[in-house]
Amino acid sequence: MSIFASIQKPTLLLNTTIAKNNLHSMAEKTRRQRIRLRPHFKTHQSATIGEWFRAEGVTAITVSSIDMAYYFSMAGWQDITIAFPVNLRQIDDINTLAGQIKLALLVESPEAVQFLAKHLTSKIDLWIKVDVGNFRTGLAWDKPEPIAQLAAQIRSTPNLALRGLLTHAGQTYHAASPAQACQIYQQTVGYMNDLRHDLIEAGITPLEITVGDTPGCSLCDDLGEVDEIRPGNFIFYDAEQCHVGSCKFEDIAVAVACPVVARHPERNEVVIYGGAIHLSKDYYEADGIKIYGTLALPDGDGWGQPLAGGYVARLSQEHGIIHLQLEDLDRLKVGDLVCVIPAHSCLTVTALKEYLTLSGSRVSTLNS
Amino acid sequence: MSIFASIQKPTLLLNTTIAKNNLHSMAEKTRRQRIRLRPHFKTHQSATIGEWFRAEGVTAITVSSIDMAYYFSMAGWQDITIAFPVNLRQIDDINTLAGQIKLALLVESPEAVQFLAKHLTSKIDLWIKVDVGNFRTGLAWDKPEPIAQLAAQIRSTPNLALRGLLTHAGQTYHAASPAQACQIYQQTVGYMNDLRHDLIEAGITPLEITVGDTPGCSLCDDLGEVDEIRPGNFIFYDAEQCHVGSCKFEDIAVAVACPVVARHPERNEVVIYGGAIHLSKDYYEADGIKIYGTLALPDGDGWGQPLAGGYVARLSQEHGIIHLQLEDLDRLKVGDLVCVIPAHSCLTVTALKEYLTLSGSRVSTLNS
Repeated sequence: MSIFASIQKPTLLLNTTIAKNNLHSMAEKTRRQRIRLRPHFKTHQSATIGEWFRAEGVTAITVSSIDMAYYFSMAGWQDITIAFPVNLRQIDDINTLAGQIKLALLVESPEAVQFLAKHLTSKIDLWIKVDVGNFRTGLAWDKPEPIAQLAAQIRSTPNLALRGLLTHAGQTYHAASPAQACQIYQQTVGYMNDLRHDLIEAGITPLEITVGDTPGCSLCDDLGEVDEIRPGNFIFYDAEQCHVGSCKFEDIAVAVACPVVARHPERNEVVIYGGAIHLSKDYYEADGIKIYGTLALPDGDGWGQPLAGGYVARLSQEHGIIHLQLEDLDRLKVGDLVCVIPAHSCLTVTALKEYLTLSGSRVSTLNS
Repeated sequence: MSIFASIQKPTLLLNTTIAKNNLHSMAEKTRRQRIRLRPHFKTHQSATIGEWFRAEGVTAITVSSIDMAYYFSMAGWQDITIAFPVNLRQIDDINTLAGQIKLALLVESPEAVQFLAKHLTSKIDLWIKVDVGNFRTGLAWDKPEPIAQLAAQIRSTPNLALRGLLTHAGQTYHAASPAQACQIYQQTVGYMNDLRHDLIEAGITPLEITVGDTPGCSLCDDLGEVDEIRPGNFIFYDAEQCHVGSCKFEDIAVAVACPVVARHPERNEVVIYGGAIHLSKDYYEADGIKIYGTLALPDGDGWGQPLAGGYVARLSQEHGIIHLQLEDLDRLKVGDLVCVIPAHSCLTVTALKEYLTLSGSRVSTLNS
């Protein structure tokens, strides 16, 4: 019996073969170039999937919250970077965790360093968060002075060890082409090395460099002069990564099976049970159209090729409105399933909390 | 000690006084006009909060999924409408539930009715879903013929009882003014009564009418000739409802307390721990700007007035980037809390799974 026969409501499908292949490719690339792979586990959020990384020789990971660090520390991970500007209000949890594992945090202000200096009870590593043009957060790469001051402040504090410079060049997601995404990655590595050079000149050494957006790490054959990369999304990819060109459609490892609940051929639309609370409201734009996901149909125990011109056009709490070419729409009846390739797999994993592999096994996450 | 002293990470605050006042106003309005209030529980998703409705005399509720119907049936609710086109793949759950409570479902296609006729094991009520210009789903109000055919099909089936016509005029959310939102509501009620008239002429009687968007139900003093309204959001409201004009800022009953983790005065921005997985990525547009939430500061055991010109400008998985006037930004330090009034409270409740009341009690939801 096909796994689809048992699916009653929005269900996150996982093709483990594709995911393991994606992982193997990235691990191989970093091994070849003698760069540490510290994958971001905010994408899969699963202790079970974490084991696949261990099998590839990964020993150090990235997470985005203290809660996620806890979850993975319980699963045996002993070297964790929380790649988020340190949340001072969780200092008690930080101290507990830092007493158990090798913990690294991100800082970008003298106030945060001062607070940690005063309240930390164990030694931790710090990375200085650098902004290379993503304009989310971090200290600007082209103003070395405040960075040098922060570095000096860290190095004068007993419980703090300065590990190096960390950035996330998220602007690759908006690159006009794969070549441009790769160029942004290379530029980022250049900026970070210029900055390291300035700091070393000022006597601040040694300093590691860590970078890590999935488009850059996937698209550039040469990862350049960095000590570590931290991509996360590459294990699954998604419709947006496919749009950016970081992967081929065949490299996408997750899809959400959603029941068809209504048909509207007069406007090329079908309504699915699968809304914002399942897929998240993240989208990307292609030719001025907001795409909340792309579409395929169940095929054997997986999903088939993408439906040309098909996409998730609108989402409300539980409704998804999908746009389809009429010939595809005509193949769908109320009660059938469609497979939505999420715009953003990380948020879809958070929303759906659990995977169903194509062989029918349930895989839990920290939210299960 | 202020409740804010104990808050370490993104936390959904609930002002129970405001919520109960919102509820009382709506309940009073429906009592005065002898209209049934069948509130949509997809907003609060909480058995505890459901009891406040019972205290106002509410005995019938609306939900958006079979899982939610189960949760509230376990909390003693015996009359539940699932206001979502019936998901045929959950027929077993539907049968179980229909054997225990008075269940009503939505249909809009002959195929769905045929399937239910064949597979239902208990009697249920059906509402025909009508589209009055929201273009999400439903049969067009201005084409009575297919609606009359569906009605006849339902009435010829033993286990199915035709209850009436249901619509959701969600287009009020995009009204240019409160007056226009109210006008859309009145137009909707007019359309539904025209349709009922046509069907009654064709011998299909009795037929109830149920409508229920929060802007229309909040803004129109006269709810018109309807049997039932189903608003949900009004219990909390949110930044979007305030923007539409359905409520005043003082009527908003929820906010998310989020720690400040970085300051960027050079671009009028502050980074908070509070991202897409806490607030959802829902937004509305005001003057061409995407608003993912508005802002206030902690004030006593609640939140103060809105910060003029302050809003959540961007969200990634855990980061929120808030835009602030410099004088407000200057009052915030790393480690402080800000209160985000969510763009869309229903999705924020789903994401955060639990409330903290201003007196410090935890209130659970179906996702807790």
